Amino acid sequence: MIKIPNGFSFLAAKAGFRYTGRKDLGLILSSVPAASGGVFTTNRFQAAPVQVSREHMQTSPWARAILVNAGQANACTGEDGLRICRTTCELAAQAFGLRPEEVLPASTGVIGQRMDLSAWERGMAGLIDQGAKDDPLIVAQAMLTTDTFPKILWRTIGFKEGTVTLLGMAKGSGMICPQMATMLGFVCCDADIQPDIWQDMLGQAAEQSFNRISVDGDTSTNDCVLGLTNGGGGVRPQKEDLAHLGRELTGLCQELAYLIVQDAEGGTKVVRIRVDGAKDRAQAELAARTIGHSPLVKTAMFGRDPNWGRIVAALGRCGAVFEPGQVRVRIAGREVFQGGTPVMADIDSLLAPYLARQEIPVHVSIGDGPGEYDFLTSDLSLDYVRINAEYRS
Amino acid sequence: MIKIPNGFSFLAAKAGFRYTGRKDLGLILSSVPAASGGVFTTNRFQAAPVQVSREHMQTSPWARAILVNAGQANACTGEDGLRICRTTCELAAQAFGLRPEEVLPASTGVIGQRMDLSAWERGMAGLIDQGAKDDPLIVAQAMLTTDTFPKILWRTIGFKEGTVTLLGMAKGSGMICPQMATMLGFVCCDADIQPDIWQDMLGQAAEQSFNRISVDGDTSTNDCVLGLTNGGGGVRPQKEDLAHLGRELTGLCQELAYLIVQDAEGGTKVVRIRVDGAKDRAQAELAARTIGHSPLVKTAMFGRDPNWGRIVAALGRCGAVFEPGQVRVRIAGREVFQGGTPVMADIDSLLAPYLARQEIPVHVSIGDGPGEYDFLTSDLSLDYVRINAEYRS
Repeated sequence: MIKIPNGFSFLAAKAGFRYTGRKDLGLILSSVPAASGGVFTTNRFQAAPVQVSREHMQTSPWARAILVNAGQANACTGEDGLRICRTTCELAAQAFGLRPEEVLPASTGVIGQRMDLSAWERGMAGLIDQGAKDDPLIVAQAMLTTDTFPKILWRTIGFKEGTVTLLGMAKGSGMICPQMATMLGFVCCDADIQPDIWQDMLGQAAEQSFNRISVDGDTSTNDCVLGLTNGGGGVRPQKEDLAHLGRELTGLCQELAYLIVQDAEGGTKVVRIRVDGAKDRAQAELAARTIGHSPLVKTAMFGRDPNWGRIVAALGRCGAVFEPGQVRVRIAGREVFQGGTPVMADIDSLLAPYLARQEIPVHVSIGDGPGEYDFLTSDLSLDYVRINAEYRS
Repeated sequence: MIKIPNGFSFLAAKAGFRYTGRKDLGLILSSVPAASGGVFTTNRFQAAPVQVSREHMQTSPWARAILVNAGQANACTGEDGLRICRTTCELAAQAFGLRPEEVLPASTGVIGQRMDLSAWERGMAGLIDQGAKDDPLIVAQAMLTTDTFPKILWRTIGFKEGTVTLLGMAKGSGMICPQMATMLGFVCCDADIQPDIWQDMLGQAAEQSFNRISVDGDTSTNDCVLGLTNGGGGVRPQKEDLAHLGRELTGLCQELAYLIVQDAEGGTKVVRIRVDGAKDRAQAELAARTIGHSPLVKTAMFGRDPNWGRIVAALGRCGAVFEPGQVRVRIAGREVFQGGTPVMADIDSLLAPYLARQEIPVHVSIGDGPGEYDFLTSDLSLDYVRINAEYRS
């Protein structure tokens, strides 16, 4: 049984935005106002729900609900899209006795389509009719698009004063290269924490998790991580406990981020890239992201080909400062390139069993500096192209 | 019949670097020292032939030969690779009565493999045995790897003093995102031009052609454009004629660059991206490159899907400065997005016949500034993944 933070309930219904025969509208409700935190996409085109969630959080840092739909992104839809998004918050507020600004909306799906308001009305009626509300999995399922499995995790953390429960869920499979945010990630917590501290904690967790993954280098217009902590567990963590909770929150977000890469559109591998020895963190990040985005590196991983030349070629064009002679590349712990030359003439058979695995570590040392960065990426498969050539039309 | 610039001859032979049953070693010879120009990869890992060609051009700006092999890139091979590359230049020099520094080497193929010297000896013997040397197509064919057709073009330009002939050839199909250079491009000319002027002309031509294309965003370790002009036609172009010749050279390089994108690994489309209205050229370039590299845009093009939301999403993350409300997107001349909203509810049927074509124009205006940029990219197809997951191993 999934452990639910105190004071949260979960609803989902069939609205029919794009999918039929499955729930595609979800609602997370807190019985009392919860401190809210949000990390949003840096894309210049921000979807209507991203804009409205920001507005609502500026109006008040205390929120009661997260409202999520799948199939229509309500992005690039102009004033009309904003108006419809506000209407959906009002519908939810009326139905559940909230103020509209206590509702944080999030959407995922096709960009540019006008939201179907009749689907919203259908879905909202379904939410109202729902009986038991103690299964968060139904929301994690309702928000999926090309995902192949729901992503939901929870942790309980014991403090002197009592137990705190953290619950997180995420969706995401393509258009994944979050920069300051991810596709959709929701975290519920029942600790009693002030909004500014909670926001800070959530921002740090996102930076070390969702911001360090990529499926295809495309940053969505709808990315957001929303967090609610409602004090329902009666625990008010102090200094050290806050640090502990922050680490747990980061850990939970890292696990969710891993699940997104594992469920990458068409993906068969999670490639764990570590760059170290760089001049500083920014240089290590540049190298790690360039390698992680290279279609040639990603297709080699799909083909189980220890083609380290492509890793080195990607590093060489990334713009980071380093001496080629100082570069060392290890795949699955085996050194394949050092001092400007291949380490072994034939590493293929040695690496074959490691490249057959689901997780492939790639470790690139580019000097003796202190800069390091970890980055997760998927492989690039035939199914990624199939899915994205066929998705929508 | 291909028009050959005066004083050039062309040789090719089977060496067996990787391919069997086809020629994979080529030589372009000038009967007299030719002014040489070169534009090389900006990848920090520069292949041995790139380093040696640079050295030779520094020693003297006059060259006699371009020596090219396919199947082994001689990149990331350290001191040993440099030594072997110098040896191959010596072999060619001995065989054809040149000085080694008059030979400009170029290689393409798998990164990191030690060059097979016995193949070099075999190939060199084949070159010496060759009879007629007036067919440049054999060199254009010998340097192919995953390319599906040879890329060769020529032009004759009439001046008061006489006629100048330009001949260009290129190879490239994957690992294509030249930055200051391309895969391999060779230009022969029989005008009498000083090396510094020729270098300048070649640099400008490369900037407006090979540097504005992408197949997969991966800049190779071996990219280079080499040009030889030997004065064999007896024409010494002066000021205006030089400008004219420069335009012709640029036009020839643009056509060759188009052929590379047309022959993109697995590619079915050439997407012609134009960004204008940007603050300056750099901002337009940033936007055009980001759109042109987006896997989601590229798979949509493969799927013939007018999914302009992906173009807008890529623009939104590119980092260029613009007002989202000022953005206009046209696909195949039809406006699909303007003022923050979709132009039509259903453009799919209207655009279907245009998206079935081989060339797809995408025009993105991002404001009213003077910055503009043109960029060619391929689509991302199932065959791209197949080729790159299976290539090598």
